[in-house]
Amino acid sequence: MTAPSPTPDFGKHILTLADHLATFSETPGELTCTYLSPAHRNVAGELIALMKHAGLSVEIDAVGNVVGRYTSQTPGAKTLIVGSHYDTVRNAGKYDGRLGILTGLVVIEELVRQGRRLPYDLELIAFSEEEGVRFSSSYIGSSAVAGRFGPTLLERKDGGGMPLAEAIRESGFDLDAIPRIARAKDRLLGYLEVHIEQGPVLLDEGLPVGIVTAIAGNVRSAVTVEGVAGHSGTVPMGSRHDALAAASEVVLAVEKRCSRPGLVGTVGRLAVPNSAINVIPRRCEFTLDIRSGDDAVRDAAVADIFAEMEQIAKRRGVSISSKELLRAPAVPCSPRLQGELAAAFGRAGLKPRHLPSGAGHDAVMFDGLTDLAMMFVRCGNGGVSHSPRETITAEDADIAARILLDVLLNLKP
Amino acid sequence: MTAPSPTPDFGKHILTLADHLATFSETPGELTCTYLSPAHRNVAGELIALMKHAGLSVEIDAVGNVVGRYTSQTPGAKTLIVGSHYDTVRNAGKYDGRLGILTGLVVIEELVRQGRRLPYDLELIAFSEEEGVRFSSSYIGSSAVAGRFGPTLLERKDGGGMPLAEAIRESGFDLDAIPRIARAKDRLLGYLEVHIEQGPVLLDEGLPVGIVTAIAGNVRSAVTVEGVAGHSGTVPMGSRHDALAAASEVVLAVEKRCSRPGLVGTVGRLAVPNSAINVIPRRCEFTLDIRSGDDAVRDAAVADIFAEMEQIAKRRGVSISSKELLRAPAVPCSPRLQGELAAAFGRAGLKPRHLPSGAGHDAVMFDGLTDLAMMFVRCGNGGVSHSPRETITAEDADIAARILLDVLLNLKP
Repeated sequence: MTAPSPTPDFGKHILTLADHLATFSETPGELTCTYLSPAHRNVAGELIALMKHAGLSVEIDAVGNVVGRYTSQTPGAKTLIVGSHYDTVRNAGKYDGRLGILTGLVVIEELVRQGRRLPYDLELIAFSEEEGVRFSSSYIGSSAVAGRFGPTLLERKDGGGMPLAEAIRESGFDLDAIPRIARAKDRLLGYLEVHIEQGPVLLDEGLPVGIVTAIAGNVRSAVTVEGVAGHSGTVPMGSRHDALAAASEVVLAVEKRCSRPGLVGTVGRLAVPNSAINVIPRRCEFTLDIRSGDDAVRDAAVADIFAEMEQIAKRRGVSISSKELLRAPAVPCSPRLQGELAAAFGRAGLKPRHLPSGAGHDAVMFDGLTDLAMMFVRCGNGGVSHSPRETITAEDADIAARILLDVLLNLKP
Repeated sequence: MTAPSPTPDFGKHILTLADHLATFSETPGELTCTYLSPAHRNVAGELIALMKHAGLSVEIDAVGNVVGRYTSQTPGAKTLIVGSHYDTVRNAGKYDGRLGILTGLVVIEELVRQGRRLPYDLELIAFSEEEGVRFSSSYIGSSAVAGRFGPTLLERKDGGGMPLAEAIRESGFDLDAIPRIARAKDRLLGYLEVHIEQGPVLLDEGLPVGIVTAIAGNVRSAVTVEGVAGHSGTVPMGSRHDALAAASEVVLAVEKRCSRPGLVGTVGRLAVPNSAINVIPRRCEFTLDIRSGDDAVRDAAVADIFAEMEQIAKRRGVSISSKELLRAPAVPCSPRLQGELAAAFGRAGLKPRHLPSGAGHDAVMFDGLTDLAMMFVRCGNGGVSHSPRETITAEDADIAARILLDVLLNLKP
């Protein structure tokens, strides 16, 4: 007769491991861990060791994903992937991506400790690249697993001019093995990702965790306003065609139109090239990023904003042109897996708050390939992310881990 | 008995001379003539030759002003200065500054030709520096003549690190002679400057020339908005503190408030440092330039705009701080000299249109020292200036010259 196992403190363990991974950085005094940097290779090594220690069979694939397997005893069982990414933005927080890996790790470690076998194979994948920092291309790791890694991607260069192919080869990986990373659709049971919310919704509502309904699609555009330059002292206000004033109207129009439900819209960059304090702006360039969990809602907003831009241009005698940079559809989460999460929330005495994800995540790569779902964990500091001020509590991480464990134990193959 | 003199074509002559001076440039293919550059020294040499040819006694002073004198036969007569500048901005037009010198030149040449003596001494001064391009300090030439050239100015450096003192010495001038350039207040009769309008007012009203009422004062400020950064996809619109959206409101508030009579206001520069397409702007920096011919009108506008900035900051939960860069009072033109110009306009069958100057001019240096006045000449191309598209017609230049001649002939000492 063995003594009952003490209840493990998942949350504290997760935060300790996140602190440890954050000690590997390209930049002293801050956390930066971009794809295939020395810090990145070190983190991969740590993850391999952690997964092995947890009792998983581990490999690193040809794009640097660290994959731990906890196989079932059922022949021909399908695979559930639990994953997130281990690369970071520059001057990052410790939890974006890594929380999902570490939550999966501590939960599977507990399954191993308890000797609990599941009726499906479980893969914990630490994706090597999601943020798109080094090669200006996101999802390098998860795209390979999802079979979406196109060969032209290998020609992309980093800021130093090194092609992706060379960076991968230099790290000792076999480029020819990349296509074989792709998982077969009929072998997958689903994809599940735990991630920090990176926003203030759960924080504002006092909730530790939430269930993602969809990962918002977005439309990104680069907009240019061309007006007429002039001396700031000599051109009467009524004779001006000020490119910046026109752009300012657009900024406020975007803000107003996107304040309707289910939408966000942002002018993130804005510049007045060759500007001077005493010259009426001739040209103004800015970016638009409009998102919604519902493509129809988003497209209606985009159409209204562009119609308003035309009105502004006409009224002010300026020209406004734009170039669409990206149009990504929203990715819905699986109703079945959302239901599994909601049931586990209920068993934990928590309100199953459903919310869309405004940010993109590795999960989107699995759209159309298998059922996907995500659980969000509350961020502190107003929901800030991509910043050293990114924070979560051990209590919330603990709740997320217990819900994940409950879902894994109750999921039917 | 001599044959009657043919009526000279002042306008065509002025344009021909402006074309000739524009052939001296620092930059091939465009007109750039900054203080004490080789092109600038060449233009000075041409001006000396032109003034000598016109029958004036000529000297170049210790800051590079070219001074031509047409003295009266009256012992102890006071001096009327007719002047403008011969330096240019980068990629300039041919008439900003030089029109005033050349109009004076052709008119005095005609006085000499007719053998007409005046009851006062006349000085035609081609000021060496007004634009402030090379040493980021304007009015170097006219400040010396007006006795406002402070010795600390000599320490200012150009973009290559050369102090103004060294540039002057290297050009062969005597630094110790600079204070002696200053004219004595009790020896001056007045200051008269012909200049292109650099704006569209005369053009829009179909008038060739106008009478300046005052040279606008201005307040310049650097403003910084501090908001809260966030992910463009994850922070709901109602939770944002977007620095750029706040700044956009200010841009439109400036435009609206300064649309009241007698004012202009411009946000010329605006930047969002460290911006990204998917990040809510945390910080926005911009400049304000607010001008009026009436200081009280301007100060009321500045006060209203700053009060509105406070409201915007409070409502949006951002902070807005500002630093005043410049506060220059408006400089009124002499009612007496405006009256002389108006009388000459009347004799020429022209409506005496009075208008303020939104731009600064050498004339401001003579404020408090002697009566000053300015005549504006219509610009084409919408009133554009500081551009190769700056243009005037020979007809308008001719009208300006005939009015100047009339004023000089009628002015009482």
